[in-house]
Amino acid sequence: MIARLNEDERAKALAHLSNWTAITDPDGLSRRFTFADFNAAFGFMTRVAILAEKADHHPEWSNVYNRVDIVLTTHDAGGLSQRDVDLARAIDALLE
Amino acid sequence: MIARLNEDERAKALAHLSNWTAITDPDGLSRRFTFADFNAAFGFMTRVAILAEKADHHPEWSNVYNRVDIVLTTHDAGGLSQRDVDLARAIDALLE
Repeated sequence: MIARLNEDERAKALAHLSNWTAITDPDGLSRRFTFADFNAAFGFMTRVAILAEKADHHPEWSNVYNRVDIVLTTHDAGGLSQRDVDLARAIDALLE
Repeated sequence: MIARLNEDERAKALAHLSNWTAITDPDGLSRRFTFADFNAAFGFMTRVAILAEKADHHPEWSNVYNRVDIVLTTHDAGGLSQRDVDLARAIDALLE
């Protein structure tokens, strides 16, 4: 069973995820990504999908043309967990 | 410029899209698809992405694990157009 982060862990994690926003409904992280066009946006989604499947932890996400909105939360933990933090970092690393 | 469907055209189109729901905000079509798992859901999304790019008409869509929600609307037409109907049919054909 994966645990929800406590306040200390949460603060430390967010300090290293400056591109992500802490959200409360659901308790988790969100980030908007904007690309040149649909091809670039969906290419990015495909890379994230492979990361997510490998981690067995999946985003809640939406796409409209060149925009991708990602929410990370852990249902089994009832909120933000280390899995979300790890996936957020892995997603950021795709764009570095 | 692509035109919004009139009431007659709309009724005829919807008669052949029994799996889709007419929505008003935005004016368009929506359908929910449920798959065995994330792999199957994202595989379907990839096929739809290729259709959409080929048609140069893109869905507004979201995915949570095995579920894909698609909305089709035509911003240039201010609502439901023939492009949405054609893409809905092409998406349905993927699953036949």
